[in-house]
Amino acid sequence: MLYFEDLTPGRCFQTASHTLTLDEIRDFAGRYDPQFFHLDEAAAEHSVFNGLAASGWHVASVSMRLMVESELGSVANGLVGMKVDNLRWPRPTRAGDTLRAEITVLSQRASASQPGFGVVTLQWTTRNQNEEIAVQLETAIWVQRRNNDA
Amino acid sequence: MLYFEDLTPGRCFQTASHTLTLDEIRDFAGRYDPQFFHLDEAAAEHSVFNGLAASGWHVASVSMRLMVESELGSVANGLVGMKVDNLRWPRPTRAGDTLRAEITVLSQRASASQPGFGVVTLQWTTRNQNEEIAVQLETAIWVQRRNNDA
Repeated sequence: MLYFEDLTPGRCFQTASHTLTLDEIRDFAGRYDPQFFHLDEAAAEHSVFNGLAASGWHVASVSMRLMVESELGSVANGLVGMKVDNLRWPRPTRAGDTLRAEITVLSQRASASQPGFGVVTLQWTTRNQNEEIAVQLETAIWVQRRNNDA
Repeated sequence: MLYFEDLTPGRCFQTASHTLTLDEIRDFAGRYDPQFFHLDEAAAEHSVFNGLAASGWHVASVSMRLMVESELGSVANGLVGMKVDNLRWPRPTRAGDTLRAEITVLSQRASASQPGFGVVTLQWTTRNQNEEIAVQLETAIWVQRRNNDA
């Protein structure tokens, strides 16, 4: 189990990988982002994506799952995001792309209001099989201190 | 159909509403954010959320669907987000909460590189049935200019 004290700046976590299928892309889009370029392969050829692309929220959500299932997912109180900044999708993610995330600790600080907790900022970068960035963001998570675990 | 020229600063769009069910919250969490406080009601009582809460990515994704189905969803080239900043979840969203979003145009500028397009920044605010903010973010979208439609 990981605590605030373990998440020192520069520490890096790697996730497993996940290959997105066309069915998964369409299923997510049908529920949460029903735009033609996420659903219809032929029509998507004439879209700004030049072909069917996954919803950006889907790419972020798949990255979240990879993170929960990584070593970082064992933080004592769970992965609880307080905010997200600089969320970018530099390129489309397609059916067949294999995603893998890397999470680096940027900073940590104790909480002034709740002495048993601290705030840790992380950068997540999810890359595809060509090492190109699919999604990147910075987030602050709320993490229990080890001393508070008694 | 809406074009860049229609998205003038201050213009505001309202979405329909959606009531989240426990099954939906667990379904999303099982696929994308399998942490106990999104899945197990009894265990979640002892979590930082003091009860079962929807994944933040789920709340954002439901907001996306409401936006796609709103008048703003009729932008000429689709809703294509380039980036997101200041994404915040000020409080947990629970089963039974009814979400509704409001989107305000913050700014617009022509694209230097692609004269047929412009960049429009938006603020989305999703509120629950008590008018409390469930999720809020700022985003920049890529929007076709009307002159380019011939």
